[in-house]
Amino acid sequence: MTALSKELRDATARLSAEARRPLAGSEKIHVAGARPDLRVAMREVSQADTPAVFSAGGNPPVTIYDTSGPYTDPGAEIDLTRGLDGLRSGWILERDDTESLAGASAIYTRERNSSDDLSALRFPSRPAPRRARDGQCVTQMHYARRGIVTPEMEYVAIRENLRRQEMLEDYTAAGLVRRQPGQSFGANLPDVVTPEFVRDEIAAGRAILPANINHPEIEPMAIGRNFLVKVNANIGNSAVTSSIAEEVEKMVWAIRWGADTVMDLSTGKHIHETREWILRNSPVPIGTVPIYQALEKVGGRAEELTWEIYRDTLIEQAEQGVDYFTIHAGVRLAYVPLTANRVTGIVSRGGSIMAKWCLAHHEESFLYTHFHDICDIMRAYDVSFSLGDGLRPGSIADANDEAQFAELHTLGELTGIAWDRDVQVMIEGPGHVPMQLIKDNMDKELSACMEAPFYTLGPLTTDIAPGYDHITSAIGAAQIGWYGTAMLCYVTPKEHLGLPDRDDVRDGIVTYKIAAHAADLAKGHPVSQVRDNAVSKARFEFRWEDQFNLGLDPDKAREFHDATLPKQAHKVAHFCSMCGPHFCSMKITQEVREFARNKQIGDDQQAIVEGMKEKAREFREKGSDIYQEV
Amino acid sequence: MTALSKELRDATARLSAEARRPLAGSEKIHVAGARPDLRVAMREVSQADTPAVFSAGGNPPVTIYDTSGPYTDPGAEIDLTRGLDGLRSGWILERDDTESLAGASAIYTRERNSSDDLSALRFPSRPAPRRARDGQCVTQMHYARRGIVTPEMEYVAIRENLRRQEMLEDYTAAGLVRRQPGQSFGANLPDVVTPEFVRDEIAAGRAILPANINHPEIEPMAIGRNFLVKVNANIGNSAVTSSIAEEVEKMVWAIRWGADTVMDLSTGKHIHETREWILRNSPVPIGTVPIYQALEKVGGRAEELTWEIYRDTLIEQAEQGVDYFTIHAGVRLAYVPLTANRVTGIVSRGGSIMAKWCLAHHEESFLYTHFHDICDIMRAYDVSFSLGDGLRPGSIADANDEAQFAELHTLGELTGIAWDRDVQVMIEGPGHVPMQLIKDNMDKELSACMEAPFYTLGPLTTDIAPGYDHITSAIGAAQIGWYGTAMLCYVTPKEHLGLPDRDDVRDGIVTYKIAAHAADLAKGHPVSQVRDNAVSKARFEFRWEDQFNLGLDPDKAREFHDATLPKQAHKVAHFCSMCGPHFCSMKITQEVREFARNKQIGDDQQAIVEGMKEKAREFREKGSDIYQEV
Repeated sequence: MTALSKELRDATARLSAEARRPLAGSEKIHVAGARPDLRVAMREVSQADTPAVFSAGGNPPVTIYDTSGPYTDPGAEIDLTRGLDGLRSGWILERDDTESLAGASAIYTRERNSSDDLSALRFPSRPAPRRARDGQCVTQMHYARRGIVTPEMEYVAIRENLRRQEMLEDYTAAGLVRRQPGQSFGANLPDVVTPEFVRDEIAAGRAILPANINHPEIEPMAIGRNFLVKVNANIGNSAVTSSIAEEVEKMVWAIRWGADTVMDLSTGKHIHETREWILRNSPVPIGTVPIYQALEKVGGRAEELTWEIYRDTLIEQAEQGVDYFTIHAGVRLAYVPLTANRVTGIVSRGGSIMAKWCLAHHEESFLYTHFHDICDIMRAYDVSFSLGDGLRPGSIADANDEAQFAELHTLGELTGIAWDRDVQVMIEGPGHVPMQLIKDNMDKELSACMEAPFYTLGPLTTDIAPGYDHITSAIGAAQIGWYGTAMLCYVTPKEHLGLPDRDDVRDGIVTYKIAAHAADLAKGHPVSQVRDNAVSKARFEFRWEDQFNLGLDPDKAREFHDATLPKQAHKVAHFCSMCGPHFCSMKITQEVREFARNKQIGDDQQAIVEGMKEKAREFREKGSDIYQEV
Repeated sequence: MTALSKELRDATARLSAEARRPLAGSEKIHVAGARPDLRVAMREVSQADTPAVFSAGGNPPVTIYDTSGPYTDPGAEIDLTRGLDGLRSGWILERDDTESLAGASAIYTRERNSSDDLSALRFPSRPAPRRARDGQCVTQMHYARRGIVTPEMEYVAIRENLRRQEMLEDYTAAGLVRRQPGQSFGANLPDVVTPEFVRDEIAAGRAILPANINHPEIEPMAIGRNFLVKVNANIGNSAVTSSIAEEVEKMVWAIRWGADTVMDLSTGKHIHETREWILRNSPVPIGTVPIYQALEKVGGRAEELTWEIYRDTLIEQAEQGVDYFTIHAGVRLAYVPLTANRVTGIVSRGGSIMAKWCLAHHEESFLYTHFHDICDIMRAYDVSFSLGDGLRPGSIADANDEAQFAELHTLGELTGIAWDRDVQVMIEGPGHVPMQLIKDNMDKELSACMEAPFYTLGPLTTDIAPGYDHITSAIGAAQIGWYGTAMLCYVTPKEHLGLPDRDDVRDGIVTYKIAAHAADLAKGHPVSQVRDNAVSKARFEFRWEDQFNLGLDPDKAREFHDATLPKQAHKVAHFCSMCGPHFCSMKITQEVREFARNKQIGDDQQAIVEGMKEKAREFREKGSDIYQEV
């Protein structure tokens, strides 16, 4: 029984076909864990056989990390008004350290729940919130430090492995396991990720597993420099109020393209209700910046913010299931003047709100003075900290300045306090940084924050390209990811100019998946190159469909190809559309290769040279024609 | 009197309005050199004053490197059928070391010129070709080594300086000269570029100044790691024959967005005529790959290529005015088998043609055996070498392999031979390289090729994103540019998939301008950051129009902004369209800044802190409202 408006019910029933369509050429698979309710979702891209003209043989499917949740599973029933199944519900219950509350603890939530005006908007089947039993700590870090491997940790281990062990033989046979030597800058990337490895990383604070007990719908993932580099996408908007249905659609759209977490940065008047819809339907961790909502509650007047209002907001959001909070507790009063001579001052919204509060009261930030209290709330729900960099530079000129690093050291101090309470922590980072100063950011973060995971926005490596800041920042993101950043916050082409639309979100995410993957490769991740090798091999063998399907955006690749050579015949053509049939550069190698294969020649250099001599004669005898009709 | 077809005449009269429109907010200026005929074109972006709410004051215009030639000068008369004025004609003549030929030296050119069928296509007012007098060398390297500063070198010096000396005082007053410390990896970036510095760089082979005596229309530029990083764009197509007018339009479009040189990679049946139209209308150096045309001349059968046909093609193109030739003389017979076990074999078109020839004949490449003869041709016209990397890797898996570096060492050997004859040389580089292996490419190139300028394609840092390879490669290009690459060859979103259209060309060039500029910044270029600082300051002061106009693509920035906040009022709004009026992060700093200014407080920290206390009281007295109505 719900009073949900017909309008909203209709809107939420209409998740777009594009958002639900399975990714081209791939299938959702589930890898079983040690217990029957542990089934880890992945995507498997099947490939065509190598054509006989090369070296006829099969090409094994490639397993791909999948963030898209059940939405791309044609077998899944999706009803946004019911939300996703609680994959983790049983795991949370069986730990027997939480209790179901009779009602919401936050004053604000109770007000919203009792307002009849909101019943038309309210998520219909809202679950009762859970909280740690008195005195208990329910964080993944807490379990890890006690030596416990949770099902969430096992899920992460299986997910990060991408079936590497099972596939090793197939991949080896298909030549997909070639790997360039990496440079990891101290990251530790084991050949196989075990559940115990995940546990140890979390226990040490080097990784977080954001998993609020009130968000059982998530497919567990980890953020840490010894795992795959992750990407966050922001949704929510500001001036214009988009509908609840639109925001849910945005979330589904973002995870389709690869967002590992989503931050809901909404500032409209129905933030609370919108968030509930997003959480109940999100298979990825959701982050927020609670100060945004707290500010709404005081009518936008930063100086009227109080610890009480903020505290109530934290509890409100924690009981909804938000997985990580950006908290700008490092913006201390004494640091604000350090920004006075900057070119672009304070550019973080949260940072500027807190700076305003500090100035108006001329007091230390309540986020800093109440940090212990904040930890006590977060450990009762397992909300992870994303310690905000409120003083991050907003321009090349301001990079790596005193204000920025003063705050970073405070974030390190706060990390220690959180860890003492077993609360998980990641650290937010810049911003705008020219290339030569990026590594210093990473090194200082690792040192000041004791290897807590770094989560950076970009950084943008130049300021002269408004309209292209997904690119100015991807250049920096790839580098800082290589140096050790655990998660990259995406930037869209609209950065600094306007609100991203659907295409911008897709562009931003794919761009950041590129940066993250380039970073994994550069670190020497044990299996990342398998996918590159598969694309390269498909390209070489003119398996166009496989090349598209193995890519980050099969639809765009196909669309671009078809714009020049639209006919189906060209997708099996033995030439590229750039060079045309008369200038194909890959054919020659195919001929050499084919010859070697026919002669059963392997790596022996002399044998190949001998073979080539014969091949030369053969070439000329055949009329030396390298071109084939399609 | 010309037989040019009416159709082509009409088509060439219609250079699109978009290609000719001056770039928004900027003006073409000319900086005078030491002689009256030396006027160096630049672009000057004017700025609005800082609004009173900040610290009212003027903002000096910013001088921007301009590759667009006369096309963006509303005062210039453009007639594509006449071509551009020969800016360098007088300089070439006064050196008195060349002669005007009675007719073309190449057999092929004479055939084309005598064909009545081609008169409808032929550029109408084709000049007589020039050549060095017998025994003379007319390369910029030759002059440089004799201590001569040519007008071309002076032009380059003025151009690279971007009026830095004249502007220094203004920029300093406006706070635009802040500069982050650079990391140049051994590059030498002087505070001021003198003509003598340009000469010395060219004499040492560390830079080239591509300037064929038959291409007097160019505005001289230099390629070397001690100058600004340059960008090349490719035009021309393959399967589909585009019209001559289209190709000229593409060239003008490419230089509008910042292409420093343009390579004409046409392979159609009117290559010769198309090239003439491009050259006569191009203010930037034009490069080609002569083997493509030579292959057309033998009906696409690589094994039928001969030194004689190739030689005639070099002379044909040199007398048209091509400024640099890509020559794959490093693809030696013995290296071909080294590619046999690659994932993607040989991916360079020129490389595969030569590999084919070597295999078919089982002989050493005629480009290698005739390298001395090639030098003798090039020195008579001042065509620069772009020594092609025919064995560059085409995938992450093949990066930095034996084949690639074997060829690189041969390119070093050939560089020495060319330098012995005073022929200018740059070296082409990869390709596909994961980030951790990029620097090794740069270091090996500098060492093997004695610091000859490196000219790289990308490199692409992953293979998994077909449709986004401008981005996968810009990540690598920014890095290799930082490490020392002198020119970056752009990659468009259509790479590996199809032929770039107009939007792809713009995307590709702007993306590569970002990479080049990020590299300049990271190296610590003395004035590059001025432009970043100007954008940042404009952004901070909500001077939207200035932010757009100072960017690499003012049109796109404006379009993106207007999509969210279309009204003119919003362009002077004191908030961004992302955060809206209630969440503006920059306002707070403005308040701190404004206060400090009012109190005449400079950098004194204590004074600022004191001021802030007073400011806090003031804030509250005023109702603590940071928001302003527009």
